[in-house]
Amino acid sequence: MTVLTFGEIMLRLKTPEHLRFFQSPVFEATFGGGEANVAVSLSNFGIPAEFLTILPENSVADACLGELRRFGVGTGKILRGPGRLGIYYLETGANQRPSRVVYDREGSSIAQAVVGDIDWDAAFSGVDWLHVTGITPALSQGASDLTLQALRIAKDKGITVSLDLNYRKNLWKYGQTAQEVMPDLVRFVDVLIANEEDCQKALGIETAVDVESGELDTEKFRLLTERVLSDYPNLQKIAVTLRESESADSNGWSACMNNRTEFLLSHKYEIRDIVDRVGGGDSFSGGLIYGLLSFETDAEALEFAVAASCLKHSINGDFNRVSVAEVRALLGGDGSGRVVR
Amino acid sequence: MTVLTFGEIMLRLKTPEHLRFFQSPVFEATFGGGEANVAVSLSNFGIPAEFLTILPENSVADACLGELRRFGVGTGKILRGPGRLGIYYLETGANQRPSRVVYDREGSSIAQAVVGDIDWDAAFSGVDWLHVTGITPALSQGASDLTLQALRIAKDKGITVSLDLNYRKNLWKYGQTAQEVMPDLVRFVDVLIANEEDCQKALGIETAVDVESGELDTEKFRLLTERVLSDYPNLQKIAVTLRESESADSNGWSACMNNRTEFLLSHKYEIRDIVDRVGGGDSFSGGLIYGLLSFETDAEALEFAVAASCLKHSINGDFNRVSVAEVRALLGGDGSGRVVR
Amino acid sequence: MTVLTFGEIMLRLKTPEHLRFFQSPVFEATFGGGEANVAVSLSNFGIPAEFLTILPENSVADACLGELRRFGVGTGKILRGPGRLGIYYLETGANQRPSRVVYDREGSSIAQAVVGDIDWDAAFSGVDWLHVTGITPALSQGASDLTLQALRIAKDKGITVSLDLNYRKNLWKYGQTAQEVMPDLVRFVDVLIANEEDCQKALGIETAVDVESGELDTEKFRLLTERVLSDYPNLQKIAVTLRESESADSNGWSACMNNRTEFLLSHKYEIRDIVDRVGGGDSFSGGLIYGLLSFETDAEALEFAVAASCLKHSINGDFNRVSVAEVRALLGGDGSGRVVR
Amino acid sequence: MTVLTFGEIMLRLKTPEHLRFFQSPVFEATFGGGEANVAVSLSNFGIPAEFLTILPENSVADACLGELRRFGVGTGKILRGPGRLGIYYLETGANQRPSRVVYDREGSSIAQAVVGDIDWDAAFSGVDWLHVTGITPALSQGASDLTLQALRIAKDKGITVSLDLNYRKNLWKYGQTAQEVMPDLVRFVDVLIANEEDCQKALGIETAVDVESGELDTEKFRLLTERVLSDYPNLQKIAVTLRESESADSNGWSACMNNRTEFLLSHKYEIRDIVDRVGGGDSFSGGLIYGLLSFETDAEALEFAVAASCLKHSINGDFNRVSVAEVRALLGGDGSGRVVR
Amino acid sequence: MTVLTFGEIMLRLKTPEHLRFFQSPVFEATFGGGEANVAVSLSNFGIPAEFLTILPENSVADACLGELRRFGVGTGKILRGPGRLGIYYLETGANQRPSRVVYDREGSSIAQAVVGDIDWDAAFSGVDWLHVTGITPALSQGASDLTLQALRIAKDKGITVSLDLNYRKNLWKYGQTAQEVMPDLVRFVDVLIANEEDCQKALGIETAVDVESGELDTEKFRLLTERVLSDYPNLQKIAVTLRESESADSNGWSACMNNRTEFLLSHKYEIRDIVDRVGGGDSFSGGLIYGLLSFETDAEALEFAVAASCLKHSINGDFNRVSVAEVRALLGGDGSGRVVR
Amino acid sequence: MTVLTFGEIMLRLKTPEHLRFFQSPVFEATFGGGEANVAVSLSNFGIPAEFLTILPENSVADACLGELRRFGVGTGKILRGPGRLGIYYLETGANQRPSRVVYDREGSSIAQAVVGDIDWDAAFSGVDWLHVTGITPALSQGASDLTLQALRIAKDKGITVSLDLNYRKNLWKYGQTAQEVMPDLVRFVDVLIANEEDCQKALGIETAVDVESGELDTEKFRLLTERVLSDYPNLQKIAVTLRESESADSNGWSACMNNRTEFLLSHKYEIRDIVDRVGGGDSFSGGLIYGLLSFETDAEALEFAVAASCLKHSINGDFNRVSVAEVRALLGGDGSGRVVR
Repeated sequence: MTVLTFGEIMLRLKTPEHLRFFQSPVFEATFGGGEANVAVSLSNFGIPAEFLTILPENSVADACLGELRRFGVGTGKILRGPGRLGIYYLETGANQRPSRVVYDREGSSIAQAVVGDIDWDAAFSGVDWLHVTGITPALSQGASDLTLQALRIAKDKGITVSLDLNYRKNLWKYGQTAQEVMPDLVRFVDVLIANEEDCQKALGIETAVDVESGELDTEKFRLLTERVLSDYPNLQKIAVTLRESESADSNGWSACMNNRTEFLLSHKYEIRDIVDRVGGGDSFSGGLIYGLLSFETDAEALEFAVAASCLKHSINGDFNRVSVAEVRALLGGDGSGRVVR
Repeated sequence: MTVLTFGEIMLRLKTPEHLRFFQSPVFEATFGGGEANVAVSLSNFGIPAEFLTILPENSVADACLGELRRFGVGTGKILRGPGRLGIYYLETGANQRPSRVVYDREGSSIAQAVVGDIDWDAAFSGVDWLHVTGITPALSQGASDLTLQALRIAKDKGITVSLDLNYRKNLWKYGQTAQEVMPDLVRFVDVLIANEEDCQKALGIETAVDVESGELDTEKFRLLTERVLSDYPNLQKIAVTLRESESADSNGWSACMNNRTEFLLSHKYEIRDIVDRVGGGDSFSGGLIYGLLSFETDAEALEFAVAASCLKHSINGDFNRVSVAEVRALLGGDGSGRVVR
Repeated sequence: MTVLTFGEIMLRLKTPEHLRFFQSPVFEATFGGGEANVAVSLSNFGIPAEFLTILPENSVADACLGELRRFGVGTGKILRGPGRLGIYYLETGANQRPSRVVYDREGSSIAQAVVGDIDWDAAFSGVDWLHVTGITPALSQGASDLTLQALRIAKDKGITVSLDLNYRKNLWKYGQTAQEVMPDLVRFVDVLIANEEDCQKALGIETAVDVESGELDTEKFRLLTERVLSDYPNLQKIAVTLRESESADSNGWSACMNNRTEFLLSHKYEIRDIVDRVGGGDSFSGGLIYGLLSFETDAEALEFAVAASCLKHSINGDFNRVSVAEVRALLGGDGSGRVVR
Repeated sequence: MTVLTFGEIMLRLKTPEHLRFFQSPVFEATFGGGEANVAVSLSNFGIPAEFLTILPENSVADACLGELRRFGVGTGKILRGPGRLGIYYLETGANQRPSRVVYDREGSSIAQAVVGDIDWDAAFSGVDWLHVTGITPALSQGASDLTLQALRIAKDKGITVSLDLNYRKNLWKYGQTAQEVMPDLVRFVDVLIANEEDCQKALGIETAVDVESGELDTEKFRLLTERVLSDYPNLQKIAVTLRESESADSNGWSACMNNRTEFLLSHKYEIRDIVDRVGGGDSFSGGLIYGLLSFETDAEALEFAVAASCLKHSINGDFNRVSVAEVRALLGGDGSGRVVR
Repeated sequence: MTVLTFGEIMLRLKTPEHLRFFQSPVFEATFGGGEANVAVSLSNFGIPAEFLTILPENSVADACLGELRRFGVGTGKILRGPGRLGIYYLETGANQRPSRVVYDREGSSIAQAVVGDIDWDAAFSGVDWLHVTGITPALSQGASDLTLQALRIAKDKGITVSLDLNYRKNLWKYGQTAQEVMPDLVRFVDVLIANEEDCQKALGIETAVDVESGELDTEKFRLLTERVLSDYPNLQKIAVTLRESESADSNGWSACMNNRTEFLLSHKYEIRDIVDRVGGGDSFSGGLIYGLLSFETDAEALEFAVAASCLKHSINGDFNRVSVAEVRALLGGDGSGRVVR
Repeated sequence: MTVLTFGEIMLRLKTPEHLRFFQSPVFEATFGGGEANVAVSLSNFGIPAEFLTILPENSVADACLGELRRFGVGTGKILRGPGRLGIYYLETGANQRPSRVVYDREGSSIAQAVVGDIDWDAAFSGVDWLHVTGITPALSQGASDLTLQALRIAKDKGITVSLDLNYRKNLWKYGQTAQEVMPDLVRFVDVLIANEEDCQKALGIETAVDVESGELDTEKFRLLTERVLSDYPNLQKIAVTLRESESADSNGWSACMNNRTEFLLSHKYEIRDIVDRVGGGDSFSGGLIYGLLSFETDAEALEFAVAASCLKHSINGDFNRVSVAEVRALLGGDGSGRVVR
């Protein structure tokens, strides 16, 4: 069972601690991106995972490959091409001050790619599951076309497809809107992952839930997931992450899933001293795919995904550096934070 | 509309993170001081701001000028003279352990200055608003005399004067007490800024409010502000910051204002994971001056000042590195800390 | 009045901030170990304290001696011998992710020592109080034998003996279990320090208190302490620390003591943003010994110990870098975290 | 006398010390670029200097403005526009391993600009001297056109023009070669700055000097400068920097100038422990413009420029953080490195 | 063509910059060891390389695996077992002060291993070349036996064997001397690598060359290599590295080789500002194996090895992070250190 | 045999690496000062050493005491008094750019002290040797008077006195010149330490040696030392350090001594990659006192002092962190910098 994720990986330039840009003349430099983050999660959980992207030919991109290898992610299918390595700048917020991302990903190699640049037969060799997100189709017409092509071919090959809607309002600048593109993609998907805002902005499915407030109405989420499943009969299941943002440091974190048979609502974790929430959603996707591949019930898969992504909030960087044993310990009820020695 | 602030700027030597002195052989080195902090806030908010002080002639003081210029603060009126650059050492506390400041500001250039060292006509050229604090008169007889002279001349020139009482018990060592000096200064002030302890220690106006407890009685603050306004009929308004200290990391933060017409009580922010509260009061002053210059109502000005200074608690260093847009976002109700991207 | 503590001191290699191992190619390197931590606490409180251990002959061990001297701890009795300097690796957790310790202390000089390697007459010269923990007897047969010998000879010399049970499940690998060894040691002890799990694992005294839950039942602790005092009639008093772990960042912290006359329950501190809890128990022991030597009542001693160890949670590193004045300020009711300047 | 420099400023991401990319997950983040570097040099020397570029609207670019202001460089003419902030990655070499630059400047705001985007009348307001380099015309057709337009208009306005040929083989990708573009620009120039390779690659003027070898033949440089002056009769003078690279750490550094009256050869500095040679040529340009504006003879100007840029090699970052007094001390013969205290 | 290297990999704890132990409470933490260093070099040069060792089961050892994977080194044959991860502490010297290594490798997993712990048939699967060093047999009787067993079996399987004598006087503590052990190993070797001291201390082959002096007599090295080849007729060739230590920062670096047909003396590099010379010999071995596998003549292989290891001296850490293209650039004559951009 | 040194210890605030002030918002914070540096050297060499100064009562000064204790320096005689802890800022130069010190030591506790503040009988209890420098009398009239008093009383008590002239042109601001003060002090001295400039500036003894040039004429130093010995018949011997400054990184370092019987000229060390030369002279004094106390001949003492201070140039910070064994290794001829492992 091998999972391939396809998308963009970026250089992530974060200010140290909670500093604003250039309070200190230093950036913490790591790599990250929705699909790569999922591949790293899976590899950390012991699932063979490969990442497919296009990178430029330079030594910073070489270092990116090395980082992926370090986690055991397969990099053999990664292509090199024209364009640049996308970047995102990150300031970590605190309390009432939100974290801020400045994207510098225009002109990236993947954004410059067009249909024909990727040999999908080679890419899908040995692959059982494909995971993509709504970020790649937001980058450029070419990246959007490639994503659609990937889903089509995957479907033809009988590969399971998961997609995280991942709506980003500051992307989608190339002339198409999310609602014009995403529905066509979702029609090839087996497992859909989203949050409430994604459903609204990417699929146009409105609900009355107020994203800004902390209060969540789970009943509304049942309705929301039912509407999505109804609109997209190809979907086997949809999982929705439920973040209650109280401050930059303190969130409630849970998720629900509708598999057409049952509506499952997970345990909710109160996360009070968040280290880094960027990549939280991706760590949920990684946990969910692991869970669906490993457990007998969707309920178990969902709880694993929520626990795995709860732990992500304690880890700096996009990647969720936790093991199955650590997630299981939390699932087993030990969130007390006692020193393990 | 140009604001001049006058006072001392110091080198701030902070231990990294929450370390105690010399746990690591490193200090974070920035600059700060009540009046300079206000100038930086104003400049960040787009208000032309100048800072007046006296610095020694050496390359560390040169770097201080550079830092002020970086924020757009006007440094053209800063004088160079004998004496040293004042310093304060800072350890950041956590939980039940308070932050600690060790002052090393004796013999600073501003403390050694005497009447005659500053040409106030030149200093007030183009100035519409003067802001000072109760720290400068606490430094030395000369600095005290210069502050009084500044207020007198500003008043003569029709310049609006704001003063933050800012009582510091470890200063006031040159032979005068705060209560002997501050009342004479306050008689030249239009906008007074204080906290409860300041009123008591600097003006001798007692109230029954218990500073150490977290509970605050707003009614008492109405009475307190009325008493101050009654004693000082020149005052147009008084603003009082209300800090409820639960721990080094967790404070309630709000303020009230009495403008002789109405008693205004602001929204209260619960700040749970404070990054740095030093300079919090100064960021309130900066926000208040901006607000009074920019909004139609005192209520709006007060809310802006409280929101601006709430955000300061998320920022390392004396300076409040936030924009009007960021304060407005918080005022607009988004303190949820969701990632902005 | 001089206190000698005997045991192992290790190099502590901690990842920066909350990073996992090798997220950054850097370790914060300090020294620590239960008994050395107690000596440092006592020296910081003004009590003459000496530390006895065996270290290898190399420059890293030399640096360890220097660090102890820095705190005024007497190092003149420390021996040099074969073997290595023990190490422990530490990752600091956050929220639901616990801190993790990886021990690398096998083959340490103290673990390789055997009876005969320490001249106890010389070691106890001028000593009034001996403090040991249950860690040293867990290292090796030799270290266990030496601990028993130390207690016997101390008892003969009329030296007061305190022992912190400090059960560590990943030690005790040399063929003996804690329950086979510890009871024999406890029979020489005057002041016993423990937590609930220690009593169970090291002495086999079961209670119904659930360690994993946050809820604590003080009545049960009264019974627990009574049972221990009943089983070990030599004990003058037993103190039990009560940690309520809500997360890696947030703990309730208190303690109780039974001195055969009264059962004392301390004030409970809510510690919400823990900087470092490793060494928390040792800082309690240090505070308790100081308190018993300095105050008239056990109640005062207990409160001092709890306040001292509450403050430890705000300090990075094994050592509790606080003064008596700082503990007294907290005892006096000021845990509000207001900046001291 | 105000100098305007026009071109691109980039984020410079340097690995710490001599590390290769991602040996440590950190970049030192500063700003730099040929023309900005010259403006900073001039401002540090007390010459009013302004920098003109186009930057995107984001907070990283805001920080760039702050850094320029810190040095007193005028930023009032800087425009904001579409595109990105260019980046260059830097590894500092050692010994036989050269420093390496990876450019990531495609799509920068200045590269996307076209004729019409800059109002040159406004830009040249109050300007007496314009400095540009051969880097800007290498970026894009638009940037090339803008540079030519700038020179034309400056010439019309009687503004002195200096140009540093600064050939970069990895730029010039938009369809024009340096030799197709640069000669047309040089025809508007008063003071030309170059090294031997620049003359060959940008102007096609060949000499027999071997760039790779350390040996330099000054006679050839006399001929080279004469050939350039002969080809470009508009030039008043040409200065050529002479770098003898022995290793990444050790260079000989000198320069020559031909002002049509005399051929001047400067003192040669042996620089043995180079801290950072990037920006060395720019610091020469800055020193030369200062010298030509401040001294009576070209010989003095040349010696100042060489001494100023010799000192640059001791300073990390693109900017030459030295004062006139420091350059004069070196010119005065004190390169002995004795501690100044 | 796959190369397997077998031996110990350690955690390397280096003080920052040139600091002595605990001048700063920080260690730079990387991994290294003679045989792993060779595998990393080979992988960086594009040769499939695997590393075989035994590591304990803990998360620090897991991180070690990740680091090897990052360079593409095959880790699939690495075993986990009892014992610890060996450590070496490193202070980097300067000038007349030498770098100092403190070993803490006793009790490592590989040192505790005995014959039977490694299945050599599995280990040698797909392997064409085996590389070992004289460090492993110096660790323990078991590690020595395993090394001998490895060579015997490799020989039987027709695998080419290279061995770097690598004499370390502070190892060899388990009862055997180098001269008792190494000759038996060398009898299975095809390519021997050594320096002059190694030949003397490990093989007992004396020469008159004075190791401490900088002067080297190449004639003596011809004789030395002839003697070794004469004593060990199985050897195809011997390469000897020639280091002329002038100071901690400045070395001459070259090598010679005797392949029974010709005595080859390489180019000598003067390395003046050494960043890190630890691992220099290993980078020579890696370069030599690459060269012997890739070039037609031994002369080319030798020059490649010397150039590759010259570059290693500019790189922090045990691993030689250079590419074939970089080595070729130096071989091609460009050691001038000009910035590559 | 116990040595007491008396003088000022300061906080040393150094920029990282070779950075100029505020290139990075960080200072490396250590402690140092001529006389404390000598005490640390002696303690590192195993000579009981005590340091006498006056420090303020604050936690930064407490940390200073801890640092001295770490090296085993006796701090029991240090007094606490009014005034501040002196500071010096340091930028480390490179190549032609010199290191720069900015003093901020006015108003220090020792500078504010007057005769009567120190009980010399207590201070000299158990002391056999007193070491002072020409820095303390340069601070203030009080400090000068105290130094004279110390020498007088030491002489009366038969304590050996050494004095390092240590002329600092930016001190001596209180109304006396060095030449008015120092000769009176030298009349109580047994062992005088100086460099050529000191003799000229502090004693008015001119020679023709050109301090700025690298060339040194040892004959002149013979004459110089003879003149000093002739003017001060109380002197037993004079040692003169000979620094040949080629650049900030590269110095020749040697010394001579005249003991009225012989003129000794030491070995000269070429130091090419200086890490930190501040404190170099103090490390010579420390080595010399050790040598005079430990060796039979002055020649041995002189060579030890020069070798010890040569090694100091490889060590960051004021203190010379080397052992007798390390100095002996260099004296024994091993300055080759080979790795010790």
